[in-house]
Amino acid sequence: MFETAELGRKVSRADYAQAVEGLRTDLLRAQNELRLDPRFAVAIVIAGVDGAGKGETVNVLHTWMDPRYLAADAFGPATAEEAERPSLWRFWRVLPPKGRIGIFFGSWYTDPILRRVYGKTDEAEFGAALARIQAFERQLVAGDTLVLKFWFHLSKRVQKKRLKKLSKDPEQSWRVTPLDWKHYKLYDRFLPVCERALRETSTGTAPWIIVEGTDSAYRELLVGRTILEALSRRLEKEPTPAPAPTRASSPDFGSRQPTVLQHLDLEARIRPAVYSKKLNAAQARLNQLSRRAQSEGVSALFVFEGWDAAGKGGVIRRITEALDARFYNVLPIAAPSEEERARPYLWRFWLHLPRAGHLTIFDRSWYGRVLVERVEGFAQPAEWKEAYQEINDFESSLADHGYALAKFWLHIDKDEQARRFAERELTAYKKYKITAEDYRNRDRWDRYDEAVDSMVERTSTAHAPWTLVEANDKRHARVKVVEVCCRTLETALERAKVRRR
Amino acid sequence: MFETAELGRKVSRADYAQAVEGLRTDLLRAQNELRLDPRFAVAIVIAGVDGAGKGETVNVLHTWMDPRYLAADAFGPATAEEAERPSLWRFWRVLPPKGRIGIFFGSWYTDPILRRVYGKTDEAEFGAALARIQAFERQLVAGDTLVLKFWFHLSKRVQKKRLKKLSKDPEQSWRVTPLDWKHYKLYDRFLPVCERALRETSTGTAPWIIVEGTDSAYRELLVGRTILEALSRRLEKEPTPAPAPTRASSPDFGSRQPTVLQHLDLEARIRPAVYSKKLNAAQARLNQLSRRAQSEGVSALFVFEGWDAAGKGGVIRRITEALDARFYNVLPIAAPSEEERARPYLWRFWLHLPRAGHLTIFDRSWYGRVLVERVEGFAQPAEWKEAYQEINDFESSLADHGYALAKFWLHIDKDEQARRFAERELTAYKKYKITAEDYRNRDRWDRYDEAVDSMVERTSTAHAPWTLVEANDKRHARVKVVEVCCRTLETALERAKVRRR
Repeated sequence: MFETAELGRKVSRADYAQAVEGLRTDLLRAQNELRLDPRFAVAIVIAGVDGAGKGETVNVLHTWMDPRYLAADAFGPATAEEAERPSLWRFWRVLPPKGRIGIFFGSWYTDPILRRVYGKTDEAEFGAALARIQAFERQLVAGDTLVLKFWFHLSKRVQKKRLKKLSKDPEQSWRVTPLDWKHYKLYDRFLPVCERALRETSTGTAPWIIVEGTDSAYRELLVGRTILEALSRRLEKEPTPAPAPTRASSPDFGSRQPTVLQHLDLEARIRPAVYSKKLNAAQARLNQLSRRAQSEGVSALFVFEGWDAAGKGGVIRRITEALDARFYNVLPIAAPSEEERARPYLWRFWLHLPRAGHLTIFDRSWYGRVLVERVEGFAQPAEWKEAYQEINDFESSLADHGYALAKFWLHIDKDEQARRFAERELTAYKKYKITAEDYRNRDRWDRYDEAVDSMVERTSTAHAPWTLVEANDKRHARVKVVEVCCRTLETALERAKVRRR
Repeated sequence: MFETAELGRKVSRADYAQAVEGLRTDLLRAQNELRLDPRFAVAIVIAGVDGAGKGETVNVLHTWMDPRYLAADAFGPATAEEAERPSLWRFWRVLPPKGRIGIFFGSWYTDPILRRVYGKTDEAEFGAALARIQAFERQLVAGDTLVLKFWFHLSKRVQKKRLKKLSKDPEQSWRVTPLDWKHYKLYDRFLPVCERALRETSTGTAPWIIVEGTDSAYRELLVGRTILEALSRRLEKEPTPAPAPTRASSPDFGSRQPTVLQHLDLEARIRPAVYSKKLNAAQARLNQLSRRAQSEGVSALFVFEGWDAAGKGGVIRRITEALDARFYNVLPIAAPSEEERARPYLWRFWLHLPRAGHLTIFDRSWYGRVLVERVEGFAQPAEWKEAYQEINDFESSLADHGYALAKFWLHIDKDEQARRFAERELTAYKKYKITAEDYRNRDRWDRYDEAVDSMVERTSTAHAPWTLVEANDKRHARVKVVEVCCRTLETALERAKVRRR
């Protein structure tokens, strides 16, 4: 989920200066338009990791917009007066009216997350608190409030560096409190808790926007541009239901920001000699683990997505070579049939859930909704935006039931794809694999790239992580996939053991 | 919540025979139309108390409709094959496609409810299961499925009678299993669990329809008519979002069915001599309890709704007479101001939540949304239908925080209201109280009556029950209200004691 915020996204000073000029004018204009025609309110939530620039961003927003019609409220521990009311009371009190923008710095998320991290609540109680938040935000949206939630993220390494740097700067050191260091030490405990909070409250109408907090120019522009885009779109027309805000797209940053895929090192290679040794070892381990999984009733789903010609078939074959044919099933997923289109989207995938001790390999999957259906326009924006949460609900059901789940995106670059297409044209028995559509898809490369980025951001979770596979070198890809499959089964077997206790 | 299903609603054999004829034809026609133009699917959930006629109703639906396009699935305990998958799997498997009707006899509610009643899950885990159900039903609705959920209810007394009667009938005795008797003995444990399940899953787009199960003719007609109405409305036009199904209105039953209000005995009276003694005693107790509440920090909200001239003012005065003015507040609620209309509907009520140890009396309240705003058309159907859940969420927050909450509807009949209006005209100092609007409202009596019925059905809950007060006799009304206020405070004080332990 946070992978997309650990890519080192940044903006140069020059690009920043140039972008800010227009952005400020546009923000002021939009804010003024909203004030004169108060059709909706705006609630901006600023949350996330300490030291990731939340305070600085709030300050900048105040200089960019007209502070008379912008109210920021910071929330620390509840006061005595607040503690005498239900926990959401203090947020209700300061809800912005239509025509105004309210910034919530420290929000209804802080308390439930801290209580869970400190162990004052269990997973089920935490879930109840998140359900209450969902109900609250549903009311905001229904009451004509545009809800924009920004989560500022830093990797553990970067957070440490940043806290240290701030501490040393005499003018900034006040920003770093002992509590910040305490939370830094709990980083690994915060991570899964925050991830669950974001996953369960990232709804179609009030999703989270994850902000990489390393570079101040980047994060400020991202937040400013996202607010501007969401405001402008809503001011233009008021469709029902309200359009979900999305992260502002990249071109406004002067330079294009790296996506998760572009961040991969496609030079990763394995020499042929090493390859067969490594592959054999991994396959042997997979065989052993799959036998244990069969006898202990642990089921698994391995999901494969990727560019055309990225080598999904070859990878899948390296897995099945290691397995007992009675216990696995490879399911190629094509466009939905009429029968399937007559039911809710996830129906056909539910049907194919493996029984105890069995494994299903999906060659393409339910992610079609947010990949091909999004890019090709087969699904409406409302549909594919809603799909992230539907998919997360689905995968939570799988995890709760004890299924092991691994998801792979096989990544190659455009040149490699062209090379492989050409090769297929030449190889008679591979020729049937290449169609006119394959060429057309290449034009949509950038839009798929963006879709994969959102997909990873919204659906890579602790219990169902995405593995992005550098697949320019087929050997590297195959070894990596089989090894991840092994680790996935191992973890699931371990969890099953704990459950039985 | 179940008050509306304990009124002895019934239909005569003659009315039944006459109504069924047209109903069958219309159902067949609607079913056929759906089949030929398969724009949506229909999922009918049949759930509720044992012995309330669920099985019989499913059978009748099969004779009324074309069984070739109607699939009913009964769900007992999970089979081995089912237990190897997540619990919702078996329901996904048999989802009806567009154009078809699926009946779920025993549904995704059974297992979570039983596990909670048997103590295998705690409240938080039960909440998580209900949240999962909500997500599932959201997907059904988003996937063009019309979801109709019927809850068959019997009072404990009637259930016992019915199970006994069935047991004695040689042709019916097979219907009664030892499990049915076991569940009957757990009736009082089932009630709050089922109530919570219904409350939290009665959403704007998939609400529960509560069916009084005593009379077979009534329940069959109600279910049949409700299906027909929901189907016809959806076939006519397909608005977004899908219209929520509501209980079929009464005129189709030959005779009008009693509402919760009509069920009240307005003859209830207290003699003047007894009155002052009883009132004094109740007020003294209220005074004592309110002092304890102050010192122990227990807060309360008393909510008053009712017909014009039903005597709200007089009742409220009898409460405040017994209280210390520093600790209570009477809030008259009028139409929302511009300031209030600029925020989500419940905003102004959140603002007025009392601090610890204080009491707020609401003279009219947040129920305006589902009463005056519904009847007068100030709120859109989508808005007031959504409001039941918003209100339940709100009141759950209050209960979780430890607030005591009592809600009163003061009921008088039309004649009594006319008498009081005339009296006001004659009494100079009361004259200002009567306006032209009061007379106009009388024309809307029936529609308010219906709105109160839905309101009680949807929002009378264990932690925030409605008290319907027979108020033709003011003395009776005042004593009853003060006594219920006492009991409400007592319960809250008791709960607070348990919490402190």
